[in-house]
Amino acid sequence: MIKIVLIGSGNVAIHLASAFSKSTKIDLVQRFSRNNTNENYFDKNISVTNKVEDLLEADIYIIAISDKGISDFSKQLHFKKGLVVHTSGSMPLNALLCKANKGVLYPIQTFSKDQLIRFKNISFALETEKEEDFKLLEIIATILGDKAYKMDTLQRSKLHIAAVFANNFANHMFKIAYDICIENDFSFDILKPLIIETVKKIETLTPMEAQTGPAKRDDKIVIKKQASQLDSDKKEIYELLSSSISKAYN
Amino acid sequence: MIKIVLIGSGNVAIHLASAFSKSTKIDLVQRFSRNNTNENYFDKNISVTNKVEDLLEADIYIIAISDKGISDFSKQLHFKKGLVVHTSGSMPLNALLCKANKGVLYPIQTFSKDQLIRFKNISFALETEKEEDFKLLEIIATILGDKAYKMDTLQRSKLHIAAVFANNFANHMFKIAYDICIENDFSFDILKPLIIETVKKIETLTPMEAQTGPAKRDDKIVIKKQASQLDSDKKEIYELLSSSISKAYN
Repeated sequence: MIKIVLIGSGNVAIHLASAFSKSTKIDLVQRFSRNNTNENYFDKNISVTNKVEDLLEADIYIIAISDKGISDFSKQLHFKKGLVVHTSGSMPLNALLCKANKGVLYPIQTFSKDQLIRFKNISFALETEKEEDFKLLEIIATILGDKAYKMDTLQRSKLHIAAVFANNFANHMFKIAYDICIENDFSFDILKPLIIETVKKIETLTPMEAQTGPAKRDDKIVIKKQASQLDSDKKEIYELLSSSISKAYN
Repeated sequence: MIKIVLIGSGNVAIHLASAFSKSTKIDLVQRFSRNNTNENYFDKNISVTNKVEDLLEADIYIIAISDKGISDFSKQLHFKKGLVVHTSGSMPLNALLCKANKGVLYPIQTFSKDQLIRFKNISFALETEKEEDFKLLEIIATILGDKAYKMDTLQRSKLHIAAVFANNFANHMFKIAYDICIENDFSFDILKPLIIETVKKIETLTPMEAQTGPAKRDDKIVIKKQASQLDSDKKEIYELLSSSISKAYN
């Protein structure tokens, strides 16, 4: 059994803890949590501490806290045994200031507290300071998820940016579409088959091959007409993205 | 059997013709095609004409051509029998200048020539000038697809804008993510589980509930760091969308 101590109580920690509990190969020996905000999302049987000096011995310490807390927290870890990793896409490996060996276990996924994630479909980007630690991280990643990719800090930071476009920004497009539906008294459900197809397409086509619509056709009449129907915030986004698409295809 | 004449040879016409061929309740009696560009995408057994005066009698004439061609084409239709409809989201019903009754059959979907569409998952927005024609259009829509929504020209134009955000713009986010992957020597496949989850989420959460990421947290350090790593075109999009998300959630 791989002994794990999990630090943090946010969305990523909640989903990792839940996946660890289900694995027979992993022993989540302890959680560290500074506050009690999300306690009802965690298994009551796992011991919890809020004192760094009470941390138990483990093979791996997973710091799943906000980016800005990683350095300060890891600085307090004076032990040298075990592997200490963070889970951030955008923070470098050397944001970890502990004495033990360092690594990164970045789950390429979007975690919402109330949405069950099928970990089997998650990819991980992994990095370790020492080559000999990579195997352990790879084992954990494949126990948890689907695929594990070796990536250095620079590649991971680029991957994280790509993920922001693919997830956060794509979802924001759905949000604006949702708002337009509500403002005009029809249901967002009307658009769901279209959204599902949008994603189905990129299983077999590149996003470039999949693109359709007025901006791709550089149909200036439709673009102008549609832009004129939007409030100024949406209009600015509409015009910038239409011009970016027109530029890419024409 | 409902007799249909289909005008056009683009992506929408290709997919409609293919769906009509599979239905036992629809008789696609003729196609009208001005050019021969996509002929290999159509069933060879359907009679084709490029002369308006040779159009056969039908219950419904479906004009699936580019927006800007609709008025000019429909102007040439001097018959009074049958229903003439266009398939455009952004054109008004009265873009049709024919003498026969008018309607709109707008498939809320994205059509690429080489991508099979499961018509069963398509919604349609329908409009007719005369109440008595609505039933016929509704029958065709439900033979072809999933749900039919009655919408007037104004609502349909709003729906089309929402569809541009939900489909074209979301897909453009995937395209930018794709480009970042390629530029940094890793596969876009890494992001596919994330993209699938992005869409899965909105089956049970609103896009607003589903949002995560640095802009939602208004994490200015990450936003600044990520923006600085992008070329000027991507940076402009990154900054505008991050600020739009931050504004929406904070």
